[in-house]
Amino acid sequence: MISKKMQELVAGSSVIRAMFEEGKLMAKKYGAENVYDFSLGNPNTAPPSSLKQDIYNILENEEQIHGYMNNSGHEKTREVIASSLNKKYALNLNFSNVCMCVGAAGGLNIILKTILNPNDEVIVFAPFFGEYKHYTSNFNGNLVVIPPNPPSFLPDFSAFKNAITKNTKAVIINTPNNPTGIIYDDKTLTALTDILKEKQKELSTEIYLISDEPYREIVYDNINIPCILSFYNNSFIAYSYSKSLSLPGERIGYVITNPNIADLTDVLAGLNVANRVLGFVNAPSLFQKVIEKYVETPAEIDLYKNNRDILYNHLTSLGFSLNKPEGAFYLFPKSLIEDDVKFCNEAKKFNLLLVPGSAFGCKGYFRIAYCVGEDTVKNSLIAFTKLYNYFQK
Amino acid sequence: MISKKMQELVAGSSVIRAMFEEGKLMAKKYGAENVYDFSLGNPNTAPPSSLKQDIYNILENEEQIHGYMNNSGHEKTREVIASSLNKKYALNLNFSNVCMCVGAAGGLNIILKTILNPNDEVIVFAPFFGEYKHYTSNFNGNLVVIPPNPPSFLPDFSAFKNAITKNTKAVIINTPNNPTGIIYDDKTLTALTDILKEKQKELSTEIYLISDEPYREIVYDNINIPCILSFYNNSFIAYSYSKSLSLPGERIGYVITNPNIADLTDVLAGLNVANRVLGFVNAPSLFQKVIEKYVETPAEIDLYKNNRDILYNHLTSLGFSLNKPEGAFYLFPKSLIEDDVKFCNEAKKFNLLLVPGSAFGCKGYFRIAYCVGEDTVKNSLIAFTKLYNYFQK
Repeated sequence: MISKKMQELVAGSSVIRAMFEEGKLMAKKYGAENVYDFSLGNPNTAPPSSLKQDIYNILENEEQIHGYMNNSGHEKTREVIASSLNKKYALNLNFSNVCMCVGAAGGLNIILKTILNPNDEVIVFAPFFGEYKHYTSNFNGNLVVIPPNPPSFLPDFSAFKNAITKNTKAVIINTPNNPTGIIYDDKTLTALTDILKEKQKELSTEIYLISDEPYREIVYDNINIPCILSFYNNSFIAYSYSKSLSLPGERIGYVITNPNIADLTDVLAGLNVANRVLGFVNAPSLFQKVIEKYVETPAEIDLYKNNRDILYNHLTSLGFSLNKPEGAFYLFPKSLIEDDVKFCNEAKKFNLLLVPGSAFGCKGYFRIAYCVGEDTVKNSLIAFTKLYNYFQK
Repeated sequence: MISKKMQELVAGSSVIRAMFEEGKLMAKKYGAENVYDFSLGNPNTAPPSSLKQDIYNILENEEQIHGYMNNSGHEKTREVIASSLNKKYALNLNFSNVCMCVGAAGGLNIILKTILNPNDEVIVFAPFFGEYKHYTSNFNGNLVVIPPNPPSFLPDFSAFKNAITKNTKAVIINTPNNPTGIIYDDKTLTALTDILKEKQKELSTEIYLISDEPYREIVYDNINIPCILSFYNNSFIAYSYSKSLSLPGERIGYVITNPNIADLTDVLAGLNVANRVLGFVNAPSLFQKVIEKYVETPAEIDLYKNNRDILYNHLTSLGFSLNKPEGAFYLFPKSLIEDDVKFCNEAKKFNLLLVPGSAFGCKGYFRIAYCVGEDTVKNSLIAFTKLYNYFQK
């Protein structure tokens, strides 16, 4: 009796849920320290050590901490975020361009609720975060997937150009990328937005570019992340503190609307209303105040960088084919057999929990989420060696 | 360029937003203490004084406070809630029947996402919380409104019976009620669920009864609130701590699924998936742990009861026609002129901010939200007197 859409969703989700449950069972059977769970893209690392004291200070010194506010969030929090981004990227934002939201997942949903008419098309580049399909479907939009472009996994611009139609309402990019770890540099963003500008003119439409950036602070080797707002007027950023502050359970993030977007007033009012009618109402109040203290704090990425280097060096030395990620906390190697689902199932024999590339629209690859403790990474190396050798027979 | 649906929503919301902004302007002009803002259904009273210490204790003593968990919430929190409800209402719930959610607004959205196919009908009784219309529309359902039944505002059972069709998928009730303050007693719930049982049989369908209960703890004069789960198998409860603990900004609540509901496993999986794909992901983590301490704590209703009594006595003595509310924190008097929107506009001349009954599908009435400080209530009495006299000319 549940809805048809939900029946399909439940059936589709059971694979990931089954893996989650299997991981828990394996941990019970073999001991948690002997199971190498690289399946979850949520940090199990600790938040900043100063967090507790910051919460104490807020509870001691501030008023109206848990109360009602504008659906777009506390004006002060929004102002602090706008100022910080202005300084970092030479922008011209004010508080009204910032809408606090329930994580980037909430942010993407309020953006799509605001802009999508039924059957509007949303373009993504494979491999992509599988939830984009569901978020688009929530508002009766259609996801259009540009096939993967290995080995660089940068956008296939020719395929992109051909995919844009009168019905294209939005393009979602995700940089640094889940699952590849690649970053779109100035050149890539220029090429991508040049196509969008040309197509907007040609088709007389507005096409929104949505940059999903939960990994913006998780960047290695001093690589610079350009800001999409400087490249293209019809743009949004969805940001989350889940990854940068290791707060995935607290559901705190924001949406930035480009001040030069078409119909700015309507869009801002739409995000505000979407927050309310979708049932978010507002981003959690206390944590809005908490993150005010962290807008200038760089994420602690030493652990991730170390994990990346250990795993990347070991896997390449074994003979796996993979890129060295520039950001996020994922490796995306080529599977040792064509069937990535079968490959990940076989990996369980060595207590390795990996996610098939198919889950990201990219068969023949697999994802390693290395946002885990260093011990898990070090102890897993021999398991990866066994897995590699197993497939050489 | 925002979606058609959103254009309508933004246009419709501008009235309430305009009132909110006008209230702020009035407060600036006349001084906050001289403006009687009864427009907001969110408590501006303080949360329990023990809350701060509870948060300290959790931060000092618990682990994995801000981390990832099952989309339905922490198992321990869910277990604590199930046990408490079992004790209070002699039920047989376990943790799996409890899904933590982002307030009751989030809860209603995950329920409707789980059950509604496009064009399914959702029945509500006017006057009703206006957001139900938007929540239903989020999933392409159609709201069917049973006309108001004054002066009792109890359901019109004959109209209800006639409104149920093959397409009826759900009925939302809200007891204690916003905006009338009435409570559905045993007799009312028996009559209502008898009709549903009969219609399910007659039409060979499943019809879900959703009880929206953010005011369940806000009850006066020792009136007993019956539990819907004991009356009808296909039932859900959506609960929020926004009102009972004065935490509207923190977005914490839960959905209870009746253990005897049809297709229980699918429904529970659906709620879990809906929490994820709608972008909530999970209820805020820290506050899940906080409310564990409050499942047995009665809400502090003395202030509300006092406000209710002062206002009710004053308004009836003036000649207003209204019921004495049994719960929630609203009065719903008859407007002194037929046009309730005009009436509320005129009330602004006396610095009174009231909401027209039309916003709840019930013309000719107006709502007073008395979840405000006692001073506001006391100082407002002379303004109500002036308002009454103004319309006697």
